[in-house]
Amino acid sequence: MDNLDYEAVRDKLFELLNNREFRQLRQILEEMNEFDVSQFLAELDDQRMAMVFRMLSKTQAAEIFANLDVEDQEYIINSVTDWELAAIIEELYVDDAVDMMEELPANVVSRVMRTATPATRALINQYLRYPENSAGSIMTAEFIDLKKYMNVRESLARIRRIGADTEIIYICYVTAADRHLEGVVTVKDLLLADDEAIIEDIMDTNVISVQTTDDQEVVSEMFSDYDMLAMPVIDKEGRLVGIVTVDDVIDVIEQEATEDFEKMAAMLPSEKPYLKIGVFTFVRNRLPWLLILMLSSTLSGIILDKFEAVYVAVPLLVTLMPMLTDTGGNAGSQAATLIIRGMAVGEIEPSDILKVVWKEIRVAAICGFVLAVLNYFRIVAMYPGQSTVAFITCLSLMLTVILAKTLGGTLPILAKMCRLDPALMASPLITTLVDAVALTIYFTISAKVFGVV
Amino acid sequence: MDNLDYEAVRDKLFELLNNREFRQLRQILEEMNEFDVSQFLAELDDQRMAMVFRMLSKTQAAEIFANLDVEDQEYIINSVTDWELAAIIEELYVDDAVDMMEELPANVVSRVMRTATPATRALINQYLRYPENSAGSIMTAEFIDLKKYMNVRESLARIRRIGADTEIIYICYVTAADRHLEGVVTVKDLLLADDEAIIEDIMDTNVISVQTTDDQEVVSEMFSDYDMLAMPVIDKEGRLVGIVTVDDVIDVIEQEATEDFEKMAAMLPSEKPYLKIGVFTFVRNRLPWLLILMLSSTLSGIILDKFEAVYVAVPLLVTLMPMLTDTGGNAGSQAATLIIRGMAVGEIEPSDILKVVWKEIRVAAICGFVLAVLNYFRIVAMYPGQSTVAFITCLSLMLTVILAKTLGGTLPILAKMCRLDPALMASPLITTLVDAVALTIYFTISAKVFGVV
Repeated sequence: MDNLDYEAVRDKLFELLNNREFRQLRQILEEMNEFDVSQFLAELDDQRMAMVFRMLSKTQAAEIFANLDVEDQEYIINSVTDWELAAIIEELYVDDAVDMMEELPANVVSRVMRTATPATRALINQYLRYPENSAGSIMTAEFIDLKKYMNVRESLARIRRIGADTEIIYICYVTAADRHLEGVVTVKDLLLADDEAIIEDIMDTNVISVQTTDDQEVVSEMFSDYDMLAMPVIDKEGRLVGIVTVDDVIDVIEQEATEDFEKMAAMLPSEKPYLKIGVFTFVRNRLPWLLILMLSSTLSGIILDKFEAVYVAVPLLVTLMPMLTDTGGNAGSQAATLIIRGMAVGEIEPSDILKVVWKEIRVAAICGFVLAVLNYFRIVAMYPGQSTVAFITCLSLMLTVILAKTLGGTLPILAKMCRLDPALMASPLITTLVDAVALTIYFTISAKVFGVV
Repeated sequence: MDNLDYEAVRDKLFELLNNREFRQLRQILEEMNEFDVSQFLAELDDQRMAMVFRMLSKTQAAEIFANLDVEDQEYIINSVTDWELAAIIEELYVDDAVDMMEELPANVVSRVMRTATPATRALINQYLRYPENSAGSIMTAEFIDLKKYMNVRESLARIRRIGADTEIIYICYVTAADRHLEGVVTVKDLLLADDEAIIEDIMDTNVISVQTTDDQEVVSEMFSDYDMLAMPVIDKEGRLVGIVTVDDVIDVIEQEATEDFEKMAAMLPSEKPYLKIGVFTFVRNRLPWLLILMLSSTLSGIILDKFEAVYVAVPLLVTLMPMLTDTGGNAGSQAATLIIRGMAVGEIEPSDILKVVWKEIRVAAICGFVLAVLNYFRIVAMYPGQSTVAFITCLSLMLTVILAKTLGGTLPILAKMCRLDPALMASPLITTLVDAVALTIYFTISAKVFGVV
C-alpha cells in the first residue's frame, strides 16, 4: 500500500522547501491528504505557510484552508489577492466558511464578504443568524434534492450533475415545489432499484428531521440513536433548509463532552484548544467558581467554630477530619458523575429519581460499612487506646457516605427538573456540601459522647 | 410530512395490542423506524415482547433485535425456533452479532453458534478473537470490494448485486488477488466518472487504514481528523479484513468519554447504562478507589498530628482549614481536568509540559492573589482582631493554589509519559495530594509565626 504517512515525508518536505525545489514539493503535497497538508502548514512560519498554501491545487486549497487555525486563515486571507480569496470562499462548504467568519476580526470578515459572490454572501448571512450551537448553525446548505415524479435514471443524472459540489451525496431529499420535505431516498435505494422506478414509490416518507433552532445536542443524540449519515434541517414552516452531516456531529459530540468535563470541574467552558487559550481567558473561566466555592466553604467554618470546645478537648478528631471529608466528597462525586453523564447521554430521565436513590442508598450502605470497618482497625492500630474516637469516626464515615451518595445521585436530577444544567451539581459543589454535612454529623456525635458543649 | 413519531403512536400501539388487533398493529410497526419499534418492545413484558417481535417482517427483525437489551435478546432467542433464530443471525451484521455474543450466557451462545451457517460461525469466531476495544472487535466484515481492472459500469453492477447485504456501500475497497488493499474509490467517484473509466485510474491509492489490533480510540481520533464514513482495517500482512463504520465510531466516542468521566471520578469504568447495573457491580467499581484514597488521607492526618500543639493554641486555624483545602483541591482539579481532556482529544502532547506549567503558574498566581485578598477581608470581617491568622491563611491559600495548579497540570502529563492512564490523575487524587501540601504550608507558617512546636 502506497500510504504517504505524514511523519515519513515530513523531513523530505522541509528539505525540498529549504532547497526551494517547489515543483517536487507541490507534487508530493498533491499526493497527501488534506489533513496532513494542513499539519505541515501549521508547522511553518506565517510567510512560508502562505507561500506553500498558494502552490496548492485549487481542489485541495479550500479543504486545507478549512483545517487551519483562525490565525493562519487570517494571515492567508491578508496575503492573497481578491481573486484568489474569492476562489477559496466559493470552494469552502458554507458551514466551514461560517465557522471561520465567527472568529475573524471584523475588517477581515468584510473583505471576505466583499469578495464572495452574492449567492454565497446571502447564504453565509443567513447562517450567521441562527443561534449558536443550534442545528441551523452547524448545517450545510449543499444537499441533493429530488422531486417525487422523477425516475431513478433522472435522479442519478441529477446527482452526477450537482454532486461534485455537495458534501454528502448519498442521502437525497425529496421536496415539493414549496420546498416542503416529502421524503428521503438513499443512493443505495437508487442503485438497487430499477432505472425506470419512480422516486415516489421508493422514497421513505417517514423522515426524521430537526428544526433549525433545535440544540446541537438534540441533533447528536438523534444521530447516535438512529445511525444516520445526514439529518435534514427544516424551518418552522416545514421547508428543507439544510442538512447536518455525520462528520460535524462527531465534532459536536466531542465538544459537548469537553464542555461537560469543564463544567463538572467548576469552570466556564471554552471553545478553543488549551494551548490556544490566553492566561486572562483562563482566569475569567476559572476564578468565578473558585470564588463561589471558597465562600461556600465558610459554612464548614461556621460549623467548626461552633464545636471549637470539642476538638480542643479531643484533638485527634481534627487529625481524622480530612479522611472523613475527602471520603465523603469522593463518594458523592462518584454518584454525581454517573448521574450527570447518564442524563447527558439520555440513559437516565428525571422520572428515574426514586430508582436512583434506592440504588445509591444500597451501594452506599455496603461501601460505607466496608470502609468504616477497615478504618476502625487502622485508627485503633495507629492510635492505641482511642477506640471511642475510632468508633465515632467510623459511624460518621458510614452515615456521610450514605448521605453523600444520596445527595450526589439526586442533586443533578433536581437541577434538571428545575431546568438548570445538571453538570453544575458535580464534584466541587457536592464536595462543599458534603463537607458541611460530614462535619455536622461528626462533631454532633462527638459532643454528645464526650459531653462537651 | 408523514412522520410517525413514537410518542404520537404509542397509545395506539398499546390499544391495538390489548385488543389483539395484530394485523393493524403489524402494519403500523412496518411504517415505523427500527429504533422506535425497539423502544416499544422494551416497554412490553417478556412474553408480549417476544410475541410482537415474531410478527415483524424479516427485514426489520434483525435490526430491531440488534437494538434490544441483552436480556430481551436472550428471551427472544429462547422463545423462537432454531429456524427463526438462524434467520435473525444471518440478517444481523457481524459486529452486532459479536456484541451480543460477548454478553450472552454460554448455553445461549452455543445454541446461536449451532444454528448459524458455517460461514457466519467462522466469521463470528474470528471476531471474538480480537482484543476487546480493538479495531478488529468493532469492525464489520460486510464491505464492497472491487478489482482495479474493472470499469465503472462493472463496479456499479457489482454494488447493485452485493450491496443489499452491506452496511456501507458508499466506500468501495480495491483489493489485489491476495486481498492486499490497493486503493479506495467512493460511489461519488463512480457516479461522477465515465462508465468506461477503469477503477485503477480513478481510485485513491493513498488509503488511510488501521490494524486489527489498534485501539478503538486510535480509530475514533482518525475519524474525527479525517472526516471519514468508513475506515478499512487490515491485518499484519496488509490484507483487508473489515471496515469500521462511522455509526460505530460515534458509539466509541461516547463510550470513551463516559469511561474517562468514570475514571476521573475514581471509579472503574462500566459498559452498561446506569439503570442496568446491579448494586454489587457498583460496589466493586467504586469501593477500591474509595479505599485507596481513604488510606492516602492518612498522610494529611499524620501532618495534622505533628501540628496538634499549633491548632490547640489557635483553634481558628481549624475553622479555616476546609476553605483552604477545598479551594486548593478545586484549583488543582480545574487544571487536571483541562489537561486530561486535552490529551484525550489529542490537543496536548507530553512535549507541551513546559508550556502547560508556565501557563498554569501565571493563571494560578492571578487567581490565588484575587482569592487571597477577598478572603483576607472576609476573615477580618468575621473574626475581628484576627488579622495575623487571616494573613497566614491567605498567604497559604495563594501558595496552595499555585502548587495545586502546577500539580494538576503536570501529574496527568507525567502519568502519560510513564504509560499510565492520565485520567487516574484526576480530581480525587489531586485533592488528596493538595490537602497534604496545603496543610504542610499552612501549619509550618503558623508554627513559625506563633512560635509553637
